Amino acid sequence: MRIDPARPGVVGDRQRAIEQELVDRVVASFGDAPDDRLREVLTALTRHLHAFLREVRPSEPEWQAAIGFLTAAGHITTDRRQEFILLSDVLGASMQTIAINNEAVGDATEATVFGPFFVEDAPRIELGGDIAGGAPGRPCWVEGTVTDTAGNPVAGARIEVWEADEDGFYDVQYDDGRTAGRAHLFTGDDGGYRFWGITPVPYPIPHDGPVGALLDASGRSPMRAAHLHFMVTAPGLRTLVTHIFVRGDELLDSDAVFGVKESLVQDFVEQRPGTPAPDGRDLGDRSWTRVRFDIVLAPAPGDG
Amino acid sequence: MRIDPARPGVVGDRQRAIEQELVDRVVASFGDAPDDRLREVLTALTRHLHAFLREVRPSEPEWQAAIGFLTAAGHITTDRRQEFILLSDVLGASMQTIAINNEAVGDATEATVFGPFFVEDAPRIELGGDIAGGAPGRPCWVEGTVTDTAGNPVAGARIEVWEADEDGFYDVQYDDGRTAGRAHLFTGDDGGYRFWGITPVPYPIPHDGPVGALLDASGRSPMRAAHLHFMVTAPGLRTLVTHIFVRGDELLDSDAVFGVKESLVQDFVEQRPGTPAPDGRDLGDRSWTRVRFDIVLAPAPGDG
Repeated sequence: MRIDPARPGVVGDRQRAIEQELVDRVVASFGDAPDDRLREVLTALTRHLHAFLREVRPSEPEWQAAIGFLTAAGHITTDRRQEFILLSDVLGASMQTIAINNEAVGDATEATVFGPFFVEDAPRIELGGDIAGGAPGRPCWVEGTVTDTAGNPVAGARIEVWEADEDGFYDVQYDDGRTAGRAHLFTGDDGGYRFWGITPVPYPIPHDGPVGALLDASGRSPMRAAHLHFMVTAPGLRTLVTHIFVRGDELLDSDAVFGVKESLVQDFVEQRPGTPAPDGRDLGDRSWTRVRFDIVLAPAPGDG
Repeated sequence: MRIDPARPGVVGDRQRAIEQELVDRVVASFGDAPDDRLREVLTALTRHLHAFLREVRPSEPEWQAAIGFLTAAGHITTDRRQEFILLSDVLGASMQTIAINNEAVGDATEATVFGPFFVEDAPRIELGGDIAGGAPGRPCWVEGTVTDTAGNPVAGARIEVWEADEDGFYDVQYDDGRTAGRAHLFTGDDGGYRFWGITPVPYPIPHDGPVGALLDASGRSPMRAAHLHFMVTAPGLRTLVTHIFVRGDELLDSDAVFGVKESLVQDFVEQRPGTPAPDGRDLGDRSWTRVRFDIVLAPAPGDG
């Protein structure tokens, strides 16, 4: 009695009518929801959920397996581990929500996923300061400008930056309360900014739970492409949450959360040991990298 | 920047292309899943999930609220409380899965939801026996036949029946280990069956969790229409899981889990005190009811 989804014609008219009548009843059940938006969302959820079911035609054990998956995701989720966000991430739903809420405007810099590792009240550094705070990794000089879509420099824009260390861990993933690999700074009068960070490395999303098992069963990698997080805010302009990625990273095409946008891939230029640093810093016999990231902020929502 | 979903035209071509490209990338990420069925399901899930997102265009706080809902559902779920099944139930997904797996065949009796209260190894009763086992409620005489779709009586069909007591609780919802309101019996040589049960009453699904809050916010009731559960099995025939409902029950049109089918609504005929019982049982000064339910089993899957 299993239906071949490639041949929906084998679902007869009578059966199709029974299935559609059920969808109509569920939609009608939300018809009196007093909140317009809730009614709109639940109506759409009902239609898309049932369209999915009627297309894939799950067996009862398959539907039980889906319930079991959600149950396992719920049970591994704690204040520090959010399996449902991981699920949203690996299905591209988080990235789609970002895309929807950051519509393309002129040449405004594209947004990408926020991720779970941002922390309020990261230390302030001056222009040219170091965000590493002791995090191990190869030094990286980051510089650029913040402008609006008309090309005007944005002075005093607040830039939050955060990143994993060379072992692939954020400070908050250690148990010792350290603050490292994160800071905020402000653009100068010319809209320019510059700081020392560390060269990003790839790392896996947590993959010891049901989402990891899903990736594994699908032949997908849990690795995120190497990246450095930015959040940029300025009055009258749309807040930008984004990353920059490393050109040449083999993971650019298989980022586990679909965060990569071509426009965000930057050249992290290798600097041999002994190459003079832009600010005269003595890097000893270490190699380092440098990258330029010019940021364009869209108008604030409602002003556009 | 919020888009009016009634005017999808306001999503520009460039934005639409960005959103579609993301969907294509997520679909492609499942392209190497070694299991054909898993690939089919995840591909369809991706397409329908993103279609939902692109239609309702959730704000980031709305998406966070959805994650929070799933998290709360996960945290209230235990071995004895399954909030994800309740969610599936109130969205009609459980009933749709039943419909898909029990396609309409001739005049075969329609299936409905299984529910969480079936128990293996319920006591056996003889034809005409009593399933109540001490459960409080008004006596109800239930009789009928089991036939196949050609009208042939099915002798020896196994009928499992279970129901809530007059307070709306199943035996397993009490902490005292009682067995009541459930039994199994077998049809006679003529395909006939008969037993005493209790007259069904409405009761609410568990509604002190996030699913209850969803129903409340939607203006929906958590009540199930009054019903008596059946599961009927016989060699060579499709197992039937269903209920019968009580004609005249005000909840028939608002059953919380969409389990009601018109063909399953039966006349529970009121019998005044003193009306002789079909088997001569002395019911004293109590009123009682009687109902007839003739069951038609479809051919087993693969034989159809």
